[in-house]
Amino acid sequence: MLKTRNPITVSEAISRIMKQVGKISSETISLNESCGRILAEPVLANHDVPPFHRSIYDGFAVRAIDTTEASSHSPAAFTVIDRIGAGDVSSVSLEENKAVRIMTGAKLPKEANAVIMLEQTVSSEHSFVIHKPFTPFENVSLQGEDAKKGDVIIEKGSMITPGVIAVLATFGYTHVKVARRPVVGVLATGSELLDVSTPLEPGKIRNSNGPMILAQLKRLGVQPKWLGVRADDVEACYLTVKQAAEVCDAVITTGGVSVGDFDYLPAVYEKMEAEVLFNKVKMRPGSVTTVAHTDQTLLFGLSGNPSSCFVGFELFARPALLAMMGSTKPYLHYAKAVIKEDATFNSFTQFIRAVYESKPSGALIAPAGFNKSNSVTSIARGNAFIVLPGGTDRIKRGEVVDVLLLGMDEGHESWVIRE
Amino acid sequence: MLKTRNPITVSEAISRIMKQVGKISSETISLNESCGRILAEPVLANHDVPPFHRSIYDGFAVRAIDTTEASSHSPAAFTVIDRIGAGDVSSVSLEENKAVRIMTGAKLPKEANAVIMLEQTVSSEHSFVIHKPFTPFENVSLQGEDAKKGDVIIEKGSMITPGVIAVLATFGYTHVKVARRPVVGVLATGSELLDVSTPLEPGKIRNSNGPMILAQLKRLGVQPKWLGVRADDVEACYLTVKQAAEVCDAVITTGGVSVGDFDYLPAVYEKMEAEVLFNKVKMRPGSVTTVAHTDQTLLFGLSGNPSSCFVGFELFARPALLAMMGSTKPYLHYAKAVIKEDATFNSFTQFIRAVYESKPSGALIAPAGFNKSNSVTSIARGNAFIVLPGGTDRIKRGEVVDVLLLGMDEGHESWVIRE
Repeated sequence: MLKTRNPITVSEAISRIMKQVGKISSETISLNESCGRILAEPVLANHDVPPFHRSIYDGFAVRAIDTTEASSHSPAAFTVIDRIGAGDVSSVSLEENKAVRIMTGAKLPKEANAVIMLEQTVSSEHSFVIHKPFTPFENVSLQGEDAKKGDVIIEKGSMITPGVIAVLATFGYTHVKVARRPVVGVLATGSELLDVSTPLEPGKIRNSNGPMILAQLKRLGVQPKWLGVRADDVEACYLTVKQAAEVCDAVITTGGVSVGDFDYLPAVYEKMEAEVLFNKVKMRPGSVTTVAHTDQTLLFGLSGNPSSCFVGFELFARPALLAMMGSTKPYLHYAKAVIKEDATFNSFTQFIRAVYESKPSGALIAPAGFNKSNSVTSIARGNAFIVLPGGTDRIKRGEVVDVLLLGMDEGHESWVIRE
Repeated sequence: MLKTRNPITVSEAISRIMKQVGKISSETISLNESCGRILAEPVLANHDVPPFHRSIYDGFAVRAIDTTEASSHSPAAFTVIDRIGAGDVSSVSLEENKAVRIMTGAKLPKEANAVIMLEQTVSSEHSFVIHKPFTPFENVSLQGEDAKKGDVIIEKGSMITPGVIAVLATFGYTHVKVARRPVVGVLATGSELLDVSTPLEPGKIRNSNGPMILAQLKRLGVQPKWLGVRADDVEACYLTVKQAAEVCDAVITTGGVSVGDFDYLPAVYEKMEAEVLFNKVKMRPGSVTTVAHTDQTLLFGLSGNPSSCFVGFELFARPALLAMMGSTKPYLHYAKAVIKEDATFNSFTQFIRAVYESKPSGALIAPAGFNKSNSVTSIARGNAFIVLPGGTDRIKRGEVVDVLLLGMDEGHESWVIRE
């Protein structure tokens, strides 16, 4: 049981996992349900945007050439011969010093190539004068200036955001091809674990890793499959993981990866004939994180300690699952910040749960409180990791540290922009 | 129709809206459905965490006092008298040089106050020796060190993240009190608008703002109520907005807020006897954004131009809706970045859709392409706004600019941490 483990760096661990990630299939879904999913095909412009020359303002469409001599001393006069609402088209073709009343977004009539804003005229019901010249295409949005028919607007592998939905709607795509949502089995192991709804008993704690991982998966758009809580029992655990591996794209377990008598995940993986990619990482917390794979399925053996489990998920399972969906941006966002407290280095790289805040006066970060691998409360308070490279020195408050951001759904407490 | 409008700053506009935001009611939901919702009550520790002194490692529980003389020359010998698995408890009380085999997470037996890691011993089946002393509570996680019974772990108004779910599970909270999801009506106005599924017609474009706003609302955890597309018609629009205002917490319209003949939202608000908070903001795009309110309901009159509409939503509707749910952090995240292209100032504050990327070498930002208020494609490509204060100078590439981050669900393309 006490086999020596060979620790590797976090980046090497990530690299080994990412090499084993296979792409999953795609499915076609309704535009309205697509936010947060990963595009399985690029979004192509199927027409020019705008589809025609259109007016940027409410005003009058004219020929720019008829305005060239206009000045405050010598106004140019125009006669209004038609009126175009947004969505209307005019059949008139403009002649010298004729104008058409036009609304924002409407298509310019034939021969017109400039728009005079309503506020730039002195107008009566059927005529107006202007006091300055207008250049060709002034106040006009040109056909195709935003996108040309055939352009790739959004690359395959991008996440569908509200802005991507606007583009899909523009081109009339009521449905969109996206990566299928991976199915991920989640098993919490440990004889000390009680269900969330169970009263506390001596020596036991409630299963908090299971619900946490289900939420971490949902946040990625992954379908979790809850496999339950299992007591420490190699055979029962083996059967559960093996069966789940046959129907899931990945199986995540918590607990059973340390080096003691009850840490039997290594035995489960061996029995499954899974290849172990690593079983020790130069990181705190979560150094015993073990990742293996079968032909079809990635097996994440996360630590049972809450903080280690959380870190293991965010560093290893997250990028693997996003990459499985074809995401081209599967890694956590990076930031730099000034640390508000002294911190002690470890021989391994530390990922300390922390509260990050960025303001015009600078970006600050502070540990989220009690910071041991079995802490639950600091996971809840943090929105980032402070990353301290392995070493022996001490880092002092006021120094700049590396930060990884953990989902920025929750925003900032004040409006900080100077005007 | 051409009444002069009095432009105000963005911060003043936000401040006027936030003063009108009323808190909505709460509801109790299942833990499993709670991720992303806003806590309507603080999370209290209903027991100490850990609930008992527990072992951090697999090893042997001992009395530290029995280890004080141990050294490499003079090892201390212990007899193993019991064995505790995780979740088990031992009834033995330790005496001199006795030990209990203990697993990670298990409760220490009576009189024990230190844990010797398995790797730190030279052991046979029923005994072992050690070669160094252990301090009291070495390798022990103390009862209550993470949280004390009665502590407020998470404040009311926080968003429920996977970490918060871990804490709720720890304390056995199977259900949680959260803010009700506001219901927000969305109406797209404009005679030029076609449904997404309709073939393009001359002079017309498809409704892209509607689906975009529905997605922006869903991203906040808000329930959108789609009111449809309306042609430019004051009476029809008045009836729709009025009826929606009676059943919704807010109504968002797009289009109809400029200064032309067809821009009739001001007339609708007047007819509803709604108080207009502002109808001109010193910002580009979106300067014509108009916000009003009745006794019960906020009315957001966003511009029909896609980029203006997007900015108006993120700057004004977003914080108002989050604050309505009691969020204490309703504003967009701030960052600083080096701009990759020259940019021209405007007399108003500019919010330029942009692509933000932060790496150890620095944070960079570049405009997301074509950047007019009627651009659709740049909204889809951007993950941030460059914010340029109103002024007349030019900003050069390489200078540092203010940035607001727009949802960081999509991550980074590479692992950038140095180890």
